[in-house]
Amino acid sequence: MKIDNVKAIVFDTFGTISDWRSSIAAEGARIAAQKGIADFDSDTFARAWRAGYRPGMARVISGERGWTPVDVIHRERLDEIIPDFGLDMLNEDERVHLNEAWHRINPWVDSIPGLLRLKKNHLIAPLSNGSLVLLSSMAKRAGIPWDFVFSSDMHQAYKRDPKVYQNAIALLGYEPHQVMMGAAHNDDLEAARAEGMRTAYINRPTEYGVDQSKDFEATSDWDIIADSVEGVADAMEC
Amino acid sequence: MKIDNVKAIVFDTFGTISDWRSSIAAEGARIAAQKGIADFDSDTFARAWRAGYRPGMARVISGERGWTPVDVIHRERLDEIIPDFGLDMLNEDERVHLNEAWHRINPWVDSIPGLLRLKKNHLIAPLSNGSLVLLSSMAKRAGIPWDFVFSSDMHQAYKRDPKVYQNAIALLGYEPHQVMMGAAHNDDLEAARAEGMRTAYINRPTEYGVDQSKDFEATSDWDIIADSVEGVADAMEC
Repeated sequence: MKIDNVKAIVFDTFGTISDWRSSIAAEGARIAAQKGIADFDSDTFARAWRAGYRPGMARVISGERGWTPVDVIHRERLDEIIPDFGLDMLNEDERVHLNEAWHRINPWVDSIPGLLRLKKNHLIAPLSNGSLVLLSSMAKRAGIPWDFVFSSDMHQAYKRDPKVYQNAIALLGYEPHQVMMGAAHNDDLEAARAEGMRTAYINRPTEYGVDQSKDFEATSDWDIIADSVEGVADAMEC
Repeated sequence: MKIDNVKAIVFDTFGTISDWRSSIAAEGARIAAQKGIADFDSDTFARAWRAGYRPGMARVISGERGWTPVDVIHRERLDEIIPDFGLDMLNEDERVHLNEAWHRINPWVDSIPGLLRLKKNHLIAPLSNGSLVLLSSMAKRAGIPWDFVFSSDMHQAYKRDPKVYQNAIALLGYEPHQVMMGAAHNDDLEAARAEGMRTAYINRPTEYGVDQSKDFEATSDWDIIADSVEGVADAMEC
């Protein structure tokens, strides 16, 4: 099963390495409690916030909108949903802090143990739609042991734009098959495979909770199919 | 003395964080011993190899040559000096391995202790002319605790080209004065200050050994003037 000659493994972050839903729900619940909001539904809040993410990026990917950092997309969506959750009283500083909740999301429990194993024999990095400060801050806070960070700002593009994968391969200077993409999203792996990268599917069937409509299982014969980052390390014999 | 509102500190690497001269000399001495070369002058070898670095980059900075990765510049210079040091017998694999000596250089003794202190309150990264794989491999091997890596490939430019500093500031999304440049080279700090960055001079008067002709002291009123990375941490009260 071991795949030879893989020099770098890059990972989707939101959903694959980190559990955004429980982390954002907890931040929402905290601020709601501070503000005395009694019937705050923190899971619905997290999912509603996240629901603005793909459409926000889609406008950039399509060219309808120029390059827009993900922190701006997060903030615009936050401002949109704030009235629905009774959070209109939040002042600017509180909104800035809450928006940075995306810099503070926690990894799944298997992520750091798996990454530490993979790191011994490979360069590891996020290949994420997050910004440089978001991804670096998240890693620093949670102890995610990246060797370096690829951020969407570096590519001026969002996945699944082929430019992201092409630019990552070019920056590494490796052959495409020497770079592996790890993701919980089949379409991310499809885009990586189209550029000649190796692929590792990591199943995260609870990522979106009741909103999850796909990615309950691998939909293709990815090089590795696992239930955790530790499972990827097992397959790579690390 | 403490400078407020600095969010990220980026460092020159070769010479400032890492002692390339002793590391390259040791790699040269090792291969010379393997090959039975009796009168190999390892310090001269290291300085001769390094002497091709600035001229190699200068051709890229001036536009005379298109973007050329630093590993290529290192390799071209290695091939140039190999006859002078009796290393003509090295085969291609041995030359590739020796060229990657630049991925294996060691930090000065104060670098990691100082960076660990600065990392608590700031994002820290190299802002180096090294390549992504070079800088990431060096950090992984030596335990340099970068939060992320800026490499010359990302900017498609070499310091002191203003594009490097401008691109770093833009990728961070901070105000220029929220980013500090740490370097042992006064001209690197001049270029950073010209973009509005904060500056920290770290004195490395032995970097080039007998070849050193400048940078024995700070030549301007940099925000911080120190003898080590730990001295920068002292000044930043970390």
